Amino acid sequence: MKSREMCDEQMLVEEPMSDSPISMNQSYDPASIPEYPFPMEQIPRMSINDPRLQHLIETSQPVVITDSQLVQPALKWNLRYLKSNLGDGLYYVYSSHNNRFKYFDKERAKQCSSFKQPTTRKEVAFSDFIEMLKKCNESTERIYLQQTLNDTVGPNIVQDYLQFNWHFVSRIQSKMQWGDLSSNLLLIGQEGNITPVHYDEQENFFAQVSGFKRCLLFSPDQFECLYPHPVSHPCDRQSQVNFSNPDYQRFPKFRDAHAVEAIVGPGDVLYIPMYWWHQIESLASAEPYDHGFTDDAASSCGSDTSDEDIPPVTVSVNFWYRSSPLPQQIEYPISAQQRVSVMRNIEKMVGAVMGSPDEVANLLRTIVDGRYNMTSREAT
Amino acid sequence: MKSREMCDEQMLVEEPMSDSPISMNQSYDPASIPEYPFPMEQIPRMSINDPRLQHLIETSQPVVITDSQLVQPALKWNLRYLKSNLGDGLYYVYSSHNNRFKYFDKERAKQCSSFKQPTTRKEVAFSDFIEMLKKCNESTERIYLQQTLNDTVGPNIVQDYLQFNWHFVSRIQSKMQWGDLSSNLLLIGQEGNITPVHYDEQENFFAQVSGFKRCLLFSPDQFECLYPHPVSHPCDRQSQVNFSNPDYQRFPKFRDAHAVEAIVGPGDVLYIPMYWWHQIESLASAEPYDHGFTDDAASSCGSDTSDEDIPPVTVSVNFWYRSSPLPQQIEYPISAQQRVSVMRNIEKMVGAVMGSPDEVANLLRTIVDGRYNMTSREAT
Ligand SMILES: [Zn+2]
Ligand SMILES: [Zn+2]
Repeated sequence: MKSREMCDEQMLVEEPMSDSPISMNQSYDPASIPEYPFPMEQIPRMSINDPRLQHLIETSQPVVITDSQLVQPALKWNLRYLKSNLGDGLYYVYSSHNNRFKYFDKERAKQCSSFKQPTTRKEVAFSDFIEMLKKCNESTERIYLQQTLNDTVGPNIVQDYLQFNWHFVSRIQSKMQWGDLSSNLLLIGQEGNITPVHYDEQENFFAQVSGFKRCLLFSPDQFECLYPHPVSHPCDRQSQVNFSNPDYQRFPKFRDAHAVEAIVGPGDVLYIPMYWWHQIESLASAEPYDHGFTDDAASSCGSDTSDEDIPPVTVSVNFWYRSSPLPQQIEYPISAQQRVSVMRNIEKMVGAVMGSPDEVANLLRTIVDGRYNMTSREAT
Repeated sequence: MKSREMCDEQMLVEEPMSDSPISMNQSYDPASIPEYPFPMEQIPRMSINDPRLQHLIETSQPVVITDSQLVQPALKWNLRYLKSNLGDGLYYVYSSHNNRFKYFDKERAKQCSSFKQPTTRKEVAFSDFIEMLKKCNESTERIYLQQTLNDTVGPNIVQDYLQFNWHFVSRIQSKMQWGDLSSNLLLIGQEGNITPVHYDEQENFFAQVSGFKRCLLFSPDQFECLYPHPVSHPCDRQSQVNFSNPDYQRFPKFRDAHAVEAIVGPGDVLYIPMYWWHQIESLASAEPYDHGFTDDAASSCGSDTSDEDIPPVTVSVNFWYRSSPLPQQIEYPISAQQRVSVMRNIEKMVGAVMGSPDEVANLLRTIVDGRYNMTSREAT
């Protein structure tokens, strides 16, 4: 039974995907891809054996690896399998009244009474998540499960996890001198869900398990174009720009933004370098969805759930690695990544020393306004 | 002979000055006071015994002390006495083609080819300074001697120095927990010379020895109004604003500047708190000048110099003290002084980490622009 499922998955999706450009094997609905005003280039897709791969990762360039088999054992993780094997741990499930799931820091949100929380979060058993999904069929509310894998998972999931291609990721981790693997995040979201553009402070191998996602990435040198919230804000690291309705008045340099794009399907692994901006969009599948609840075995088990009750979802697993240590010697001009890090530290430090983040802007503007960038007109 | 000179000085100037408001004993020409567009209040003048004095100094408020006798032995320091007794050390003499002597850092100026030095500096014997002064009578060039007193001075000056009222300044230094006396600067400048507005990073007792000076001070919370050059600029700590011809286009907040003013004469000591802005203007004396060269003794010595050959000058001595240590606990909101210090450190740090001061403005603007001060209009 287990081996049959794996074969199915491989025949259906995994095999055709590897080594071939995504465009030739679309299994998603192209009409489900939102259109945006900025230019996009394609992120290169390549084999684990491609000689260009190491250089790209070394130089913090995004790349899709098509045949790493990183999460091969997870390709069978449909909802039925997960329900049966994830165990009785609790899972964070976010609800949104639109299709955007903008991350925010709960603790900071509590301290900031004027902040309107863009999503609500519940901690529920996995079976409750499936019940919540069913309800989404009859409402405009959407949900997104985002939970770090932990030791509550059942023995089959542990086995799958152990059979991930650790050899591949650990070799890269070691070559790049990255720090520890900090966590694996399991993401199960409805088709159409969007994780709005933000950056993370860790290296990320983004492994697609089931369904398709469109990933839009922006290099760290586009900090100016993407206007992140202040570091003290609950939405630290999140852009203030909504791609679907950009406010050019407030964010004029967003006109200069330019993305690189990858559509990832089951088995693809996208390297998202630290500090690279990314927006992740779950696409609609072109085929009817196989949650696993309507096959022979499931019916004979007396399940009261059928695939049609549940909206289609996509499944991904993040591999987050801590950054490599600072280089012994800083080379100039410093990299865009280092520049973002410097800016974050200044913001934090000034907020701390002034006793309030509200003072940061005034102080920094006072340093600059009328004092800098006037060298040519200087009088004595 | 020595005692007669001292009596003269005391009768002429010192006695009438102490304990009386300056306006009742003007010995300067009011027409020589430049007019400026900002409002001014008077700095309080008070006796060394005034119970308000300690509180003013403690809270970093400028005040004129009228009877401290701090530089009593120096009140006889006319040019002839100085020429005879200063010894054969070398003295920095600045030359300017106008009446402004804007300070700049020589080393930084060398490294900055686009910087036009506002003054030139020579290092000359004191007798050469007097020769230079004579030449100024026939030219528009002006000069200003500014030299830290050092161990090249002759024995009479050493005696005078030892008889300064160290008891008074040391008691304040100790009560305020100031650091060491870092230096005494001797200033001898032509009437009409202006030291343009700047701030220093030390506490200063500004002791007037001979002639009159108008001192304009601005509190450290007017940093925004006075637009100092970048910290990396040769004119660090100097305002870019020229009071006689303010460029409101470039420096719009200069309209909000408001000064406190003191006119100090021989024997007066002005406390200039650290980080307080100050512009110091040598006023024209109302009486003919007594450089000491035309009295009987001088002529009989065969001197080839007479007072009429030399333009009138003013003489002052600065007492600079290092600041008190940081308080154990920072209280909020932080003081204007601490804010200036924080800004200086951020400027320096960002310049250093970015590898160039040219990057400071861009980086700080990027932190602020479109990101801060929009909280009320924030969308998620
Ligand atoms: Zn992310
Ligand atoms: Zn000064």
